[in-house]
Amino acid sequence: MKQNVHFVTVATPDLDVARAFYVAALGWVPLVDVPGEIIFFQVAPGAVLGLFDVEKFAQDLGTGPAHSVVSGVTLSHNVESPDEVHAVVAAMAGAGGTVLKDPQPGAFGGIFHAHVQAPGGIIWEIAHNPGWQIGVDGAVSFG
Amino acid sequence: MKQNVHFVTVATPDLDVARAFYVAALGWVPLVDVPGEIIFFQVAPGAVLGLFDVEKFAQDLGTGPAHSVVSGVTLSHNVESPDEVHAVVAAMAGAGGTVLKDPQPGAFGGIFHAHVQAPGGIIWEIAHNPGWQIGVDGAVSFG
Repeated sequence: MKQNVHFVTVATPDLDVARAFYVAALGWVPLVDVPGEIIFFQVAPGAVLGLFDVEKFAQDLGTGPAHSVVSGVTLSHNVESPDEVHAVVAAMAGAGGTVLKDPQPGAFGGIFHAHVQAPGGIIWEIAHNPGWQIGVDGAVSFG
Repeated sequence: MKQNVHFVTVATPDLDVARAFYVAALGWVPLVDVPGEIIFFQVAPGAVLGLFDVEKFAQDLGTGPAHSVVSGVTLSHNVESPDEVHAVVAAMAGAGGTVLKDPQPGAFGGIFHAHVQAPGGIIWEIAHNPGWQIGVDGAVSFG
């Protein structure tokens, strides 16, 4: 098995609410938007975030609604500075996100971060990590 | 907020079990491995999967164990053919994964896929999607 993630798919209770948050308020552009079913956003080279209607998510998985509450996962969005952490958190809160942790130094990794829960359940970490870099070839390194 | 996911971080009950599955059995190479804390794997250009000790995950989030059971999310690994779906599922099962859905045509998107739960909780979708492509610039398209 190659070391690749191509899609992160998240059970989403209301795609209209999610669309209002990511598209209308934050300005994201869907790769594909199938109303009532799924919205795809490209979020890295070759990698896609899918917001999948929660009932269809459970149907596709075949394991019922037990797996349809999002938990045990965070998605991180890295920014260039602590000030930018504050700015993105403010933008997400203004768009309807719930701030779970105000911007502050993290317990791990020397980062400055915050946690914001988007409507629908995804917990986003907004982080400035001074040591983290992406090379021109896409290789990630921690300084 | 830019349209980027840099880390997918997953609460993981036993990092030694996860390491045995991803590293020893499947041959993945960690970007960073901090025993008892976190293992990072690069899984796309500029994007990292982090397996984070479940207690530290909950501590970092500051919201307690309610958010530490993985659910409502799948990670997809795309392959070139239905035969390769079978091969990867067999490799994951041999490594200790639990097959939740045997390889079969999917209900959505014209794909051929299977679901396998890795030790620790991540549900992987192994999929062949004939229409899905990654351009040389990393742009994803659905044919």
